[in-house]
Amino acid sequence: MTELGIVKRNITRADRAAVDQLAQYGVATVHEAMGRVGLMKPYMRPIYPGAQVSGTAVTVLLHPGDNWMMHVVAEQIQPGDIVVAAITAESTDGFFGDLLATSFMARGARALVIDAGVRDAKVLTEMGFPVWSKCVSAKGTVKATVGSVNIPIVCAGAAVQPGDAIVADDDGVLVVPAAWAQKTLDAAAAREANEGAKREKLASGVLGLDLYNMRETLAKAGLKYVD
Amino acid sequence: MTELGIVKRNITRADRAAVDQLAQYGVATVHEAMGRVGLMKPYMRPIYPGAQVSGTAVTVLLHPGDNWMMHVVAEQIQPGDIVVAAITAESTDGFFGDLLATSFMARGARALVIDAGVRDAKVLTEMGFPVWSKCVSAKGTVKATVGSVNIPIVCAGAAVQPGDAIVADDDGVLVVPAAWAQKTLDAAAAREANEGAKREKLASGVLGLDLYNMRETLAKAGLKYVD
Amino acid sequence: MTELGIVKRNITRADRAAVDQLAQYGVATVHEAMGRVGLMKPYMRPIYPGAQVSGTAVTVLLHPGDNWMMHVVAEQIQPGDIVVAAITAESTDGFFGDLLATSFMARGARALVIDAGVRDAKVLTEMGFPVWSKCVSAKGTVKATVGSVNIPIVCAGAAVQPGDAIVADDDGVLVVPAAWAQKTLDAAAAREANEGAKREKLASGVLGLDLYNMRETLAKAGLKYVD
Amino acid sequence: MTELGIVKRNITRADRAAVDQLAQYGVATVHEAMGRVGLMKPYMRPIYPGAQVSGTAVTVLLHPGDNWMMHVVAEQIQPGDIVVAAITAESTDGFFGDLLATSFMARGARALVIDAGVRDAKVLTEMGFPVWSKCVSAKGTVKATVGSVNIPIVCAGAAVQPGDAIVADDDGVLVVPAAWAQKTLDAAAAREANEGAKREKLASGVLGLDLYNMRETLAKAGLKYVD
Amino acid sequence: MTELGIVKRNITRADRAAVDQLAQYGVATVHEAMGRVGLMKPYMRPIYPGAQVSGTAVTVLLHPGDNWMMHVVAEQIQPGDIVVAAITAESTDGFFGDLLATSFMARGARALVIDAGVRDAKVLTEMGFPVWSKCVSAKGTVKATVGSVNIPIVCAGAAVQPGDAIVADDDGVLVVPAAWAQKTLDAAAAREANEGAKREKLASGVLGLDLYNMRETLAKAGLKYVD
Amino acid sequence: MTELGIVKRNITRADRAAVDQLAQYGVATVHEAMGRVGLMKPYMRPIYPGAQVSGTAVTVLLHPGDNWMMHVVAEQIQPGDIVVAAITAESTDGFFGDLLATSFMARGARALVIDAGVRDAKVLTEMGFPVWSKCVSAKGTVKATVGSVNIPIVCAGAAVQPGDAIVADDDGVLVVPAAWAQKTLDAAAAREANEGAKREKLASGVLGLDLYNMRETLAKAGLKYVD
Repeated sequence: MTELGIVKRNITRADRAAVDQLAQYGVATVHEAMGRVGLMKPYMRPIYPGAQVSGTAVTVLLHPGDNWMMHVVAEQIQPGDIVVAAITAESTDGFFGDLLATSFMARGARALVIDAGVRDAKVLTEMGFPVWSKCVSAKGTVKATVGSVNIPIVCAGAAVQPGDAIVADDDGVLVVPAAWAQKTLDAAAAREANEGAKREKLASGVLGLDLYNMRETLAKAGLKYVD
Repeated sequence: MTELGIVKRNITRADRAAVDQLAQYGVATVHEAMGRVGLMKPYMRPIYPGAQVSGTAVTVLLHPGDNWMMHVVAEQIQPGDIVVAAITAESTDGFFGDLLATSFMARGARALVIDAGVRDAKVLTEMGFPVWSKCVSAKGTVKATVGSVNIPIVCAGAAVQPGDAIVADDDGVLVVPAAWAQKTLDAAAAREANEGAKREKLASGVLGLDLYNMRETLAKAGLKYVD
Repeated sequence: MTELGIVKRNITRADRAAVDQLAQYGVATVHEAMGRVGLMKPYMRPIYPGAQVSGTAVTVLLHPGDNWMMHVVAEQIQPGDIVVAAITAESTDGFFGDLLATSFMARGARALVIDAGVRDAKVLTEMGFPVWSKCVSAKGTVKATVGSVNIPIVCAGAAVQPGDAIVADDDGVLVVPAAWAQKTLDAAAAREANEGAKREKLASGVLGLDLYNMRETLAKAGLKYVD
Repeated sequence: MTELGIVKRNITRADRAAVDQLAQYGVATVHEAMGRVGLMKPYMRPIYPGAQVSGTAVTVLLHPGDNWMMHVVAEQIQPGDIVVAAITAESTDGFFGDLLATSFMARGARALVIDAGVRDAKVLTEMGFPVWSKCVSAKGTVKATVGSVNIPIVCAGAAVQPGDAIVADDDGVLVVPAAWAQKTLDAAAAREANEGAKREKLASGVLGLDLYNMRETLAKAGLKYVD
Repeated sequence: MTELGIVKRNITRADRAAVDQLAQYGVATVHEAMGRVGLMKPYMRPIYPGAQVSGTAVTVLLHPGDNWMMHVVAEQIQPGDIVVAAITAESTDGFFGDLLATSFMARGARALVIDAGVRDAKVLTEMGFPVWSKCVSAKGTVKATVGSVNIPIVCAGAAVQPGDAIVADDDGVLVVPAAWAQKTLDAAAAREANEGAKREKLASGVLGLDLYNMRETLAKAGLKYVD
Repeated sequence: MTELGIVKRNITRADRAAVDQLAQYGVATVHEAMGRVGLMKPYMRPIYPGAQVSGTAVTVLLHPGDNWMMHVVAEQIQPGDIVVAAITAESTDGFFGDLLATSFMARGARALVIDAGVRDAKVLTEMGFPVWSKCVSAKGTVKATVGSVNIPIVCAGAAVQPGDAIVADDDGVLVVPAAWAQKTLDAAAAREANEGAKREKLASGVLGLDLYNMRETLAKAGLKYVD
């Protein structure tokens, strides 16, 4: 009756073309396009600034202090995947370092998202393998207890199904349900197209108050100006 | 009987010339010059390292998850201002991004200080608009409930009056009461002038114990040397 | 009956040659080599990325909000030392800045490790004096109450004896008991030598599952593959 | 494309008889029976000690600082339900007090589980309406933005489907998938039946080492006794 | 140019009769009556449940790890006062215990509110002297550095002027500006009077949706019911 | 070269008579008597209020998410001992429940101090077995990796040697080095004897300012009274 101890090999990944195009819009725009849901908690931070990626989720559930399943999930990675790792309880251990990153990259993984710690931060940065994690920690782990691969997980407050689209950048990590990938992409593109004109007007000194016609609604909501 | 729903248009800003010169001394020196009060909590961090600014505070009080008042405060910005934003309750949402930054810059704002989250961190960095915040988060906000602009607020543990001087750098954010701007500047300058000689002596190997004549007081306080 | 108020002048430092060679292997590798003990908590972060050092610990115990003993410990520094500072209670104050760093560098210190805050982060970065700390804070301190120098302390969850070897990099801070320095170095070197071949195999696409012969043990532990 | 703004009226609740019997075994036992998954984070605490309940989940997703949907979810409550509330972002506001509790009790709710704050803690205790929450806070909320009712949510790190069984006591809050209710109950009962004999033996001084035959495995795992 | 080192003897206290009547309404009701401002952060907790008090603030600003000013503030207490203590930086030390409580009670203090730790929790509970604090800690403090008494402070995120009204119960701590005491009292009384009828209706099964006529506004805001 | 995998059977316990008498003075008094060192972090809280104990430490170091060593340490318990448990990394799992408590009590243990979580809080309270812990959590653990028993550990920021005296009550947990037990007891008794007279004077309205002759030193330190 447990979800632990299972590796699901066949998962349905979100549409590759749609997923691949999500990265360019960034997490904030895609999150808005999707209706402001699906974000991981803001404690998830990139180990180095500037990376901006999208990919399909392969999921792994690990036991605190035990990274055995990292080797199991490696085999399930396909090019374009992002590994999303949850732990069955709060943990800050370093589950992942440069050797595993070498293996993940060889399999075609684009990034790791983990609700725990990673190590070899400097080498990972040099390798250009982006990781979003709760912390950096050298704390080593054992290989003693099995978890699961490609089951539904909760990572940093967000539900993730294997095959979902993941978008990650300096603003955080977003989960786009696989079935929403294309329409979310369309909505993000539309939103972005719309922002150029706004940006120009705001840059010229036009106020959002006027650009978005907020003055009347604000007054109705009770806003008062005093001197 | 509420403080919510008010925009104060006329505020008295701290002396511009004094405020503008505070930046060069940095937060740590000005904080010491001022008598070691007025600092925001150390969880307030710059979104990119190296920025060092001073300016006059325009304040805004927002509702959690609602950034409507950001557009209202934009209109009250004058060149040389720093927007200081507090939320009526703990919040990590992303209240501010590149579009609002474009607007704030067009109005002459030098920085944003916010006791919550911001987004578009990468673009803000490229734009060179410095932000000190509690966190970075893509979490979008609504525009539904009014707050206030240019009322006294508490931001990250520090009381801020509209018009106060704000100094911010990699060491954190400091609030200098408007009436103290000039004398704080003088004290900071005096302190800085005094540090060059000290630095040279310390660099040459002279100990602080001798430079500051601490040995006798330490002995009186009970310090004992053992082998 | 107190441990406060004592400066121990003569301490036995870990073997210099061994200590100096530890830095090259980095915290994660040395931590593994040592048997996965001795790490400080992961909230200890470098004020700038990329520094990688090893040295011998001189320890200092301070009172919250009081950095008087920083001047006392400066005198006990010998070239190759790393100052390790603990506070008698939780504190985020800025106990250390560029003047003290100038003094520490003049004495030959390689780094500071402090379970509290530091300030002048920007200048320390320019000086190239690495610090691992709980936070950055401009908050000034007084000089009123004595602590101790070169007594056993607990810093960020790790027990430190004066003279122990300290290794620190982007992955955190590690304490190697003085008596273990050489054998830990040997084990780290052996471990590192072993990793090159592994890295090549993993980079070529060989899985850890096969490289480490995990498939049978995983199956015995109950792991099941499903489609 | 949003999950916000939806109230699902017809949900399939876990088997009533099974759900009702889960409470007696308590969270720790049911969690073990279920395979050590499904627990909410340990920051979820009861507002008063001693309550021990089970029920079927009706879920609600709210906006930070906005408790409008609490009134919407009230209508969907059936006797034996437990309301499980998530917020779209971190929030500590007081979303729930004695008036809402009066309404929930009138509808037959057994408890509230909320990943945020509640207020009127004293009155709720007197009313005997148990709440598990992140904190207690008097902070009032607005009623301006819609959320959803009876959609899948993540609450305090656990995925919850409407209709799932919830078990809560002083040890925390557990989510049992609806389809697992009966078998989890059976496993919990079996586990409990088995514990009486163990407890007697341990009380008589028999060691777990012997009761569970651990000595040999420990020795194999490398445990050494020294004097 | 510092705010440290000052004891203000004459302060204007909020109207006694109004202040004394605030307690009966409790923090949540008074906070609503006041317009949802003035609350301290929810980490401020009572050391024992059930206390519900109101009083006039005498303020004290202390240095971390130093409780000297607690003895200074004792002299400024008048019957009906509540001492509100802030620290110049984050601190969890135990600034207050049973001896100081004895002195405070002899002076007529009704409670202590402190953004730090207290000790002798068990004895304080037996004495019936209520304290709202950030934590309980036995950590002793020194008496070496002066702070101030009866200056404006920020305590747990709320600005407090000497003489303001303080209301505290199991839901937290509220600051009512002195000038607002009577009108806040009136508004709280009106609110309370209004709640009895609501409670009865809700208890009879009437929904808030109908009692507050929310259905139409919810529909306008986009809420949709699905089966 | 690891500290893991060792059980030390023969340890020297602090003088039984001295240890047993420490409890009556409580943590705050003994901590002062000892010179204000040795306290664990204030996040260590009792699972129920009112317990006040002292005993001799048997120590155990566990792996995150793995309580195997709890059974090993049980055998090393002698009447009058308190088990002090540290984890090699941050963990909130529930390492201990009613069955282990039954075993510990049968062996004569007086309490458990653990820098992690415990479960069965309600039953432990009914059994009257006091526990000081970081949290309460039902999260189950595995039995797969060995740790050590009766080695020096760091628990919640305090260094603990096997055999040290432990004092715990509602104010927290204190470690008294075994060699200091008797003199600490004497100092605590002296301190307590001295407090009765002080308490009476303070209760009669005498101020600490006068009782401790602070007025002159305060004035010298710069304290100024203003109206």
